[in-house]
Amino acid sequence: MPKIQTVLSPMLLQLTNLSGKTVVVIDILRATSSMCVAFAHGAQRIKPVSTPQECITYAPQGFICAAERDGKPVEGFAIGNSPFSYMEPAIKGASIAITTTNGTQAIEMSKSASRIMIGSFLNKKALCKELIRQQQDVILLCSGWKNNYNLEDTLFAGAVAKELQDEFSIADDATIGAIDLYEVASRDLNLYIKKSSHAHRFVSLGIEKDIAFCLQQDIYDLVPILENDFLILPETNLIASIT
Amino acid sequence: MPKIQTVLSPMLLQLTNLSGKTVVVIDILRATSSMCVAFAHGAQRIKPVSTPQECITYAPQGFICAAERDGKPVEGFAIGNSPFSYMEPAIKGASIAITTTNGTQAIEMSKSASRIMIGSFLNKKALCKELIRQQQDVILLCSGWKNNYNLEDTLFAGAVAKELQDEFSIADDATIGAIDLYEVASRDLNLYIKKSSHAHRFVSLGIEKDIAFCLQQDIYDLVPILENDFLILPETNLIASIT
Repeated sequence: MPKIQTVLSPMLLQLTNLSGKTVVVIDILRATSSMCVAFAHGAQRIKPVSTPQECITYAPQGFICAAERDGKPVEGFAIGNSPFSYMEPAIKGASIAITTTNGTQAIEMSKSASRIMIGSFLNKKALCKELIRQQQDVILLCSGWKNNYNLEDTLFAGAVAKELQDEFSIADDATIGAIDLYEVASRDLNLYIKKSSHAHRFVSLGIEKDIAFCLQQDIYDLVPILENDFLILPETNLIASIT
Repeated sequence: MPKIQTVLSPMLLQLTNLSGKTVVVIDILRATSSMCVAFAHGAQRIKPVSTPQECITYAPQGFICAAERDGKPVEGFAIGNSPFSYMEPAIKGASIAITTTNGTQAIEMSKSASRIMIGSFLNKKALCKELIRQQQDVILLCSGWKNNYNLEDTLFAGAVAKELQDEFSIADDATIGAIDLYEVASRDLNLYIKKSSHAHRFVSLGIEKDIAFCLQQDIYDLVPILENDFLILPETNLIASIT
């Protein structure tokens, strides 16, 4: 039986050997949610990069360049990481370069894994189906907020682990805690996340609409994966999302 | 209103400025529980040290030397971190030097704080009373297991935060999550921790009796604090524990 494990902050990832494992990168508010939105709206590929400076170098090649820091678009960039920015007609067929405060760093740190997948509530069911199909050890990596623990990523890890627990063995306390916390929060996920917002930055950013959008479950039947440093939809996914 | 914050692993402590704050070091199984036991049985002072090598240098000065690694007493040391080792008649009036896998490291890492206190279920009520009296920002530091998140330390952080929440403002998601997890687990704390034992090492160590002991609540009315690199009971505590 393959194992499932939860890493509650990218800073704790160094404790885990990723070799031969699948890492699911989780940044619910909002990077990994918005990546799913982009693919659902026809994006061809997404290049996650570390800095706004690196991001802008992709502009001459025709990439849409997106950069977010501290919850806001970086100056000089038309878009940040709001999911609504990735629903525009220009997204269809586009190559996108993106850098965010937490999510794209977490992808970068996971590169020694055998597979990297993008997870969000929006594609949860498709992700779980794919993880079960692959029968490989899974690391659920919460991007957190500047390496601090956050609730929304932990809750998603709990939601996935709950879905997988009959087919995977649970390898650590973080996964047990995440499942039980999700049980509590899932009665009203939106309300629960609002409770957490006192603890950090959402209210001041005015992104309540984004949050409500990102907490919708299973609206996209696709699983972005990293291949040759680009996020893409593999063939099987593409077919699933078209039919 | 002072703030309360939870650090889920010593590795995450570097994200937090400890200056002017009180750190509560938590290592429920078993270092901080056993420290409380030692003071309840008349220990005069405890010197937390980093390594077994350093620990043994205190023997010539008449210290009782205790060392634990990977859940077992280190070879050459009579005692490790089982609470029952700290109930012996020899403990009365003794100076103790101790090194453990997680707890003593967490104390060492907290030294830039304005105060360091020792927390366990055994002295929870006394600890909360003291924190409320002091009206200073509090960091609940979970020692974890080799820098990994663990449930028992998180649950204790949740128990303390729940007790303090009317007098302190909650500063982070980790505290919110810990409170809600404690709400779930407190229905039967012993059973809940047993569930977690599959995830790590308790069963193989045969320390079920220690676990049951360490999960008792509020049996000691004392709060060990660090002063000049020694854990002691301050005057007010001493009186409280005698009367």
